[in-house]
Order: sequence, then structure tokens, then C-alpha cells
Amino acid sequence: MVTDPQAACFEAGIKFGSLYHQFAGTPLSPSSARSLERAMAESIENQPYCESVRVEILDDALEAELNESSADYTELTGEFMEVEMRIEYEGVTVRTKMEMEDGYPLMKLVSVEE
Amino acid sequence: MVTDPQAACFEAGIKFGSLYHQFAGTPLSPSSARSLERAMAESIENQPYCESVRVEILDDALEAELNESSADYTELTGEFMEVEMRIEYEGVTVRTKMEMEDGYPLMKLVSVEE
Amino acid sequence: MVTDPQAACFEAGIKFGSLYHQFAGTPLSPSSARSLERAMAESIENQPYCESVRVEILDDALEAELNESSADYTELTGEFMEVEMRIEYEGVTVRTKMEMEDGYPLMKLVSVEE
Amino acid sequence: MVTDPQAACFEAGIKFGSLYHQFAGTPLSPSSARSLERAMAESIENQPYCESVRVEILDDALEAELNESSADYTELTGEFMEVEMRIEYEGVTVRTKMEMEDGYPLMKLVSVEE
Repeated sequence: MVTDPQAACFEAGIKFGSLYHQFAGTPLSPSSARSLERAMAESIENQPYCESVRVEILDDALEAELNESSADYTELTGEFMEVEMRIEYEGVTVRTKMEMEDGYPLMKLVSVEE
Repeated sequence: MVTDPQAACFEAGIKFGSLYHQFAGTPLSPSSARSLERAMAESIENQPYCESVRVEILDDALEAELNESSADYTELTGEFMEVEMRIEYEGVTVRTKMEMEDGYPLMKLVSVEE
Repeated sequence: MVTDPQAACFEAGIKFGSLYHQFAGTPLSPSSARSLERAMAESIENQPYCESVRVEILDDALEAELNESSADYTELTGEFMEVEMRIEYEGVTVRTKMEMEDGYPLMKLVSVEE
Repeated sequence: MVTDPQAACFEAGIKFGSLYHQFAGTPLSPSSARSLERAMAESIENQPYCESVRVEILDDALEAELNESSADYTELTGEFMEVEMRIEYEGVTVRTKMEMEDGYPLMKLVSVEE
């Protein structure tokens, strides 16, 4: 009733939702960006079938936001990061990506390969 | 490269990861259980393709935890809830469920139907 | 070394930080605003010394955001809510408030009374 | 109506509540503990008046939990960390600490000095 590629895609989605909603709202500045990237990636890599996570805080978007508001820090939202993940489930490899599209952070399936 | 059923399963996973990691850690008691159930369901139903969410806080498990610790409240984790969701994506219906299995909260695909 | 009013203010701060960072990022629309208000208030009222919490989702600010972005929902941040709390600790009453000031959500002590 | 030491204690409480409820629920294993400690400290140090944060994931408590459950990872809760913070507000220094006491994570004021 459920195929391995479908289950692999479900697992991939779980990791994305987890990453986003665990860390959205975290206080963020240029000086704390690198440690947050690393902690996000390493914590989500703990989850089952999650082979690799790469998080990139977008320094330019962050600096632009801070310049505009003249604040020292902001809160993490999707507009300040790009994420790539690779999920391995029962021989299926799923690649996913989150990036901004038309002003919104979009989580998408890049490929599903058996 | 990615089929509609696969994309539907990815969307279903996103909702589960979001629900769990947005609300895990919320202070929880028997008197606040009903409002939290409802807020969790209604907030996740805002997400795209998410047709229905049912959250049930497990009163018995909660009472047992509070009796054992003689505390007035605890923090929400997977052992205190069951969740069911229905995702509709491009004509594909995905049903998912979270429940305890061997002492762990397990998120699973129940069915994928075109 | 630490007075009761100081400890009461510390407790009040804990509740505010908890409320904000537990729920920031929650998917939010006009139709889910009421249940979220209630769940936020009731869950934080579980915490020690927290006598009452009132959360108001600002419907006008929310509608304005959704109109501007033509999205169906957004994520909860400080700009969409006002919060009032009353803490009672060892005979000290602390009243606190969160509201927007100069474009930022500001958490403040309103009064400390013995 | 509100003294500087009281306001300093309120600020200290905000930071503790923020740290706890932002990061509670994060997937945690021995191999991701160091990066999470660092990200928690650096992100909360972004907040106003927060001069220093030290987070220590308790490796022994974490290993004990994982051995007992034979899982590879768990979720961050108060039993797996100790936290110390120093807040500086209008000439007042507040030191705070979170540690386990009688099986519960307790956030406390250590000292308030003008």
C-alpha cells in the first residue's frame, strides 16, 4: 500500500518540518550564524535515515535585514537560510532543498532515486 | 523525476515534523490539554495540502506521569499524544498517524491513494 | 542576596521568554487565531507562580500581513500579538506586558507590588 | 515603580525561558552535543543585556539515557543540560543558573549585584 520511495519521501518531509519548526525564532546575528548552521545540521542528522544536512545562513539577507531595522539581531526564518538534505531509506535516495521562491521559503523534493 | 504520490508523502512528512517540533516542550496539564489539542490541529491545518489534523492528548498517560512525579504539569512529548492527518495533493490522498510503538513515538504512512 | 520582588521578576521573565519562544513560528491564520490564543495562555498558566495570562492575536495586523503577501497564513511573531501576565510569588504581584514599540515586540514590567 | 535590579531580574528570566523553550525537543546525541551547546549560548547572547551564556550538555546523563533506551539519540530536555548566564542591566549584574534539583530542572537567581 505504501512503496519504499513514498516512505522515503515521507521521512524526508519529517526532517524538513522538524528542522524548520525547531529552529525558527532562534535569535540570529552574523556572529552566531556559523554555530547555528552547524547545530541545525548535526541535530537533524541524528534523525533516522538522515544521511546529510547542509544549512547555509544567508549572510547577505541577514545583513540587509539588520541594516534596514538597525537592530543587532533578528529571529531565524526561512528567508535567512538555504538547506539541502539527503535521505537514505531502504535503498532509496531522496534529495531535498529549501530555498526562497517568490518571497517564500519553499521546501522541495529534488530527486528520488532507487 | 518525482511523482505526485511521492510529493504528497513529502508534504505529509513536513506537516508531522512541523507539528512535533513546534509544540514539543509546551507546558501541559489535564486542564490545558483540550486547548492545546485544538490549537495544534488548527495551526497545522493552515499548511498547504493539509486537509485535516486530529490531535488527541492521552489523558491516561498524562495523569500517570503526573502521579508518578507529583508535579502539576509536564512538557509535551510524543508519549502524550496521538495524531492523525489527511493530506490532499494533486489528487493523491495520504493518511498518516503518530502513535507510540515500543516506547517511541512513531510517525507513519497509513495509506497513499490516487 | 536575592529579594522576593527580584525573584518574582525573574519568574515573570521566564514565563515571557517561554511563551514567545515556544510558540513563535506557529502557522497562523484568522481562523486559527482564537484557538492559539487560548492554548498559549492555558499552557503558560501551568508554570509555577503564573496566575493569569491573556494573549490577544492582533487580527488587524494579521489581516494586513496576509493582504500584503496574498498568502493564506503566516507564522506567529511578536508583531501579531499582545500579551499580559500576572505573577504571584511569595506575596509579590508582578504585572507584565508585551506590545509593539517602534516596530519591535517589547516585553516589559508594568508593576511590582508587595 | 520598578527598580533597576528588578528589571535586570526580569531580563534574566526572559533569557532563560527563551533558551529552554527554543531548544527543548532538539534531537541530541553525543556527537551533536558540542555544536548544540555552542549554538544555544551564542544565539541567546544576541539578546539585549545578555553578557555571557555557558551551556553544558551533560554527557553522562545523555549516555545513561541512550544506554537505557538503546536509541541513538534523544530530545533535549532540562535533565541533559546545565546553564549559567550573566546579565548586565543599568549597572546591575545578575547571575543565574539552571540545574537539576530533585529530578527537575530548576532555573534560579544566583546573585543580584549593583
